[in-house]
Amino acid sequence: MATIEQLQAWHELAQQLRVDSIRATTAAGSGHPTSSMSAADLMTVLLAKYLRYDFNNPHNPNNDHLVFSKGHASPLLYAMYRAAGVIDDRELMSLRKFGSRLEGHPTTVLPWVEVATGSLGQGLPIAVGIALAGEYLDQLPYHTWVLLGDSEMAEGSIWEAFEHASHYKLANLIAIIDVNRLGQRGQTMLGWNTQVYCDRARAFGWKAIEIDGHNLEEIDQAYSAAIHNLDYPTVIVARTKKGKGVAHLEDLGGWHGQALKPDDAKAAIAQLGGERHITIAVEKPEEQPLTATTGQQAQTLQLPIYQEGDLVATRKAYGDALKALGGSRPDVVALDAEVSNSTYAEDFAKAYPDHYFEMYIAEQQMVAAAVGLQVRQYKPFASTFAAFLSRAYDFIRMAAISRANIKLVGSHAGVSIGQDGPSQMALEDLAALRAVWSSTVLYPCDANQTAKLVAEMVDRDGIVYLRTTREKTPVLYEVDEDFPIGGSKVIRSSDDDQVAVIAAGITVHEALKAYDRLKQEGITVRVIDAYSVKPIDAATLHQAARDTAGKLVVVEDHWSEGGLGAAVLDAFVGIGTAPAYGELGLNLVKLAVRDMPGSGTPEELLHAAQIDADAIVKAVRSLVKQAAWMPTE
Amino acid sequence: MATIEQLQAWHELAQQLRVDSIRATTAAGSGHPTSSMSAADLMTVLLAKYLRYDFNNPHNPNNDHLVFSKGHASPLLYAMYRAAGVIDDRELMSLRKFGSRLEGHPTTVLPWVEVATGSLGQGLPIAVGIALAGEYLDQLPYHTWVLLGDSEMAEGSIWEAFEHASHYKLANLIAIIDVNRLGQRGQTMLGWNTQVYCDRARAFGWKAIEIDGHNLEEIDQAYSAAIHNLDYPTVIVARTKKGKGVAHLEDLGGWHGQALKPDDAKAAIAQLGGERHITIAVEKPEEQPLTATTGQQAQTLQLPIYQEGDLVATRKAYGDALKALGGSRPDVVALDAEVSNSTYAEDFAKAYPDHYFEMYIAEQQMVAAAVGLQVRQYKPFASTFAAFLSRAYDFIRMAAISRANIKLVGSHAGVSIGQDGPSQMALEDLAALRAVWSSTVLYPCDANQTAKLVAEMVDRDGIVYLRTTREKTPVLYEVDEDFPIGGSKVIRSSDDDQVAVIAAGITVHEALKAYDRLKQEGITVRVIDAYSVKPIDAATLHQAARDTAGKLVVVEDHWSEGGLGAAVLDAFVGIGTAPAYGELGLNLVKLAVRDMPGSGTPEELLHAAQIDADAIVKAVRSLVKQAAWMPTE
Repeated sequence: MATIEQLQAWHELAQQLRVDSIRATTAAGSGHPTSSMSAADLMTVLLAKYLRYDFNNPHNPNNDHLVFSKGHASPLLYAMYRAAGVIDDRELMSLRKFGSRLEGHPTTVLPWVEVATGSLGQGLPIAVGIALAGEYLDQLPYHTWVLLGDSEMAEGSIWEAFEHASHYKLANLIAIIDVNRLGQRGQTMLGWNTQVYCDRARAFGWKAIEIDGHNLEEIDQAYSAAIHNLDYPTVIVARTKKGKGVAHLEDLGGWHGQALKPDDAKAAIAQLGGERHITIAVEKPEEQPLTATTGQQAQTLQLPIYQEGDLVATRKAYGDALKALGGSRPDVVALDAEVSNSTYAEDFAKAYPDHYFEMYIAEQQMVAAAVGLQVRQYKPFASTFAAFLSRAYDFIRMAAISRANIKLVGSHAGVSIGQDGPSQMALEDLAALRAVWSSTVLYPCDANQTAKLVAEMVDRDGIVYLRTTREKTPVLYEVDEDFPIGGSKVIRSSDDDQVAVIAAGITVHEALKAYDRLKQEGITVRVIDAYSVKPIDAATLHQAARDTAGKLVVVEDHWSEGGLGAAVLDAFVGIGTAPAYGELGLNLVKLAVRDMPGSGTPEELLHAAQIDADAIVKAVRSLVKQAAWMPTE
Repeated sequence: MATIEQLQAWHELAQQLRVDSIRATTAAGSGHPTSSMSAADLMTVLLAKYLRYDFNNPHNPNNDHLVFSKGHASPLLYAMYRAAGVIDDRELMSLRKFGSRLEGHPTTVLPWVEVATGSLGQGLPIAVGIALAGEYLDQLPYHTWVLLGDSEMAEGSIWEAFEHASHYKLANLIAIIDVNRLGQRGQTMLGWNTQVYCDRARAFGWKAIEIDGHNLEEIDQAYSAAIHNLDYPTVIVARTKKGKGVAHLEDLGGWHGQALKPDDAKAAIAQLGGERHITIAVEKPEEQPLTATTGQQAQTLQLPIYQEGDLVATRKAYGDALKALGGSRPDVVALDAEVSNSTYAEDFAKAYPDHYFEMYIAEQQMVAAAVGLQVRQYKPFASTFAAFLSRAYDFIRMAAISRANIKLVGSHAGVSIGQDGPSQMALEDLAALRAVWSSTVLYPCDANQTAKLVAEMVDRDGIVYLRTTREKTPVLYEVDEDFPIGGSKVIRSSDDDQVAVIAAGITVHEALKAYDRLKQEGITVRVIDAYSVKPIDAATLHQAARDTAGKLVVVEDHWSEGGLGAAVLDAFVGIGTAPAYGELGLNLVKLAVRDMPGSGTPEELLHAAQIDADAIVKAVRSLVKQAAWMPTE
């Protein structure tokens, strides 16, 4: 039981957090003071008594983790940092200003923020990933605390987190729902019906505790119960008031995302007892040694080897290579969304079950868990059908804002999957993943290339995406070839190439067939395997354009927008200022999927989409023919 | 109570559905027979007794709706069509073959399939949209039946559907979960723990009925209870066996997505009692008149009018225009994900509350509901922050496969939103939406243009996306200007333009500032407002390239990949064969966001991203300067 003195001290601290939330947002002229005020009591008790965190060493493996899933309550978080003595008042007042670390929603530019939030419903699933690391990999007793808003409980991703947290018995995970009843534009679906939140949480296998979120004793007791609950994750459903503590704000609509005008702020701060300058010493965690999992030394990597001409699907090579990595890198973990026998993540899962997490059909949770795992420096590879990564696109976008280092692998790309039909065909994945900040996009055409690229992915920063193919394709490269990210392979060339064909993945094989047929016609083409779609090998493309008077054919198993063709074109534009090489005549043909495919054999569908050898031959001929009547220099 | 004769007849029909599922998949050499067999009894009783459907008139407003959320059970659906007499045996045997309507997963190329499925967890949220139409707009007594797999219950989108269905009291919605315990690669998270499914459903406000999914009497009673339940949606949790009826398949792993070999199939069919040729007459619905909602005549549209020079955010113009549309078009409905006071959908919501559905913070459910509403011919406009449409990207992708006609509106695009920071900034939406089949992408720069485009969106087929801006911008256009989709506006031009600047939305205003500054330097530039990003106005771009020797600057508030710059480049490539105009020298500078933004004022962030007037001036100068030492024709 907390003493009266302790309760009084906590009350003072809570009021300071409220006052600071108002001061910072009023100085900024925007922000979310009232959403911060509702959770101030909840965060006060956490900071003052329960959080174990070494602010001087954010990477201390024994630290607790705190995720503000309701990222718009960032003023509260920053006020907590001030109370902890790690930012000063001047920095607090820089909230939302250009160049400040205190952005409108928390990002990892602050050393104590581990993941960016602000897209609601993401903090809890990411925390599941951190808790998985704690329970199964680090095997350390730290807790992961998550502050949630009640509005975000409507996001399905929250329930993916609930089901996975109970499935994996993550008793180290504690969710705190700030049920202030009011969303951005009115009442939430459930209002103050905290009983329903508890019923749902319990049906999903959690321990649920219902409290008055402004009663410091109830908060204290709930946290105590949560950290002593060793069987299940705990959710604390706290009934609160938005704008708590200020009469003209409390539980009133119309105040979401509104900073107070200076005069209003002055009156509100007075009601809250004025400014305070309390600093508290947040307790550090007990030091516990890491288990062997992360301490292991890396072994020499023995990548799988494939013989030229053998038929091997690149998805299978991914599985083989990932398994090989598992033997050499104890920091590699794998996740899959219930299709590991298709993506071949199962090869890793069988060999290293302790480093594999089955995410079932919940792609958002899968990507979120990967983000959580990399918080603890693991190297997560998350795989599913490439089409279904689109389910987690917002999570991938936010992972980039978190500066997260995750590896995504999408199998069954393009029409070449055949009979299953368009719902299973990724035709937009290259466009979507290219348009993610910090991303790398790889698309290998053979098994040896795939294995090499998987090995390079491990330590590549940012969002690294590998696209694999369902069908078996012939091995083209010898095992000693290297495939640096950012490179390409010129696999057919001569001194008098008339056209260059740029392909990747499945279409490389079509380009080679087209090469043979065109050669018989006396037309020589260059064939470029652009396995690194982003970054693209601009130098090789420039050379090809110079050698062929700009006659390029790009062929891809993807919609015509945003994929390989777009990447190639981007190599010919100036960034910010004029292209260094000046004007370059481009005479480029794009072969890409334009009509909605149906079912059929891979060959039928590649042909129907006009991205097979026939289409390449036709495109090349049209460019060669054009030269006869419209010469270029 | 069903008679013994009836039960026997149903059993025979169920066995036929199983046999046909095996026959069709074996003929195809792929597909999901065992996932079909587990649900055969459930679908038999539905087809034979409960479904009210006029196969001769799929658009009969009184028809029940049946959504196969577990789309991989398509062989069962097609077997039902054969039993209903609407496809013959020859067509059934065309499953998964090139050109067949019977694709690997159901699509709307079949007249009785209303939405494509195959990305799990989408059928139920779409059905919520159909049920909303039935309950609130059509006000007709039809039911929407949904067959779900148990694996897909792990998708968060399912729980968005559960919460919305109970919130909106959709007693006309009946979900049937085929709990066959086995997913693609092993047991599901909950196995046969049907009690937990029921607990969760009840906590989410549904009536739940637990049955043996192979007991025809229990199925009959459950359906009867469901259609007589007038208060809440009903879920029937049916315990089943995958591969039911064939000893060597029943409840065994390793059979997911596996067709039987011909000999295996023969033995299995024998076990099931051989082939049958039962045809049943599915009962038609009672004819009920449509309510006034859809019968209303369209009134003359009075779009809002804005004065040149006034400062109006395009998001506000969207709200005004949508409200105007509401007065003229009774088929227009609006949805928003709890930010209607930011997107301005609230203007419509207040004026036409009966045609507005609050979707709370559940973007997947919002887009799915839009797809469901358009099944009944409504014209849904679904809005949220553009960044958060990324949450529903898989639903948008699948909506295109459904050939759905939906309108998406994303506000708060780009760094120009200012202080809220990157989590709230859409910087990938143009890339993502361009890479959707059948999509239209619009990005207006002023209020009058926005209003005109909103009016054009209503009857535009496919996925139509409008990107709006948070900040107020000056009105540029007179009210009588037209902005056809596929067009653009040349807003500054002369006979000696040295460079053409192509902009859209917020950057049009920066381009105009740059124009003025460059003019003072003696440099004349053309300024093109490319409000129609897809389709792009290729003819105007070609003319600009000819007039400026290919010197183009594209400036956009978006990542550099896949957006306006990519759309402009695509206008200069050949599709399939060489570009008609032959080689065209391009000397293009892309100005786009490349570094991760933080918080700041819109002006600071546009400047930091180098997409403001300063950056345009610099880029133009670099192109003009280049001409001096590297002349082009």
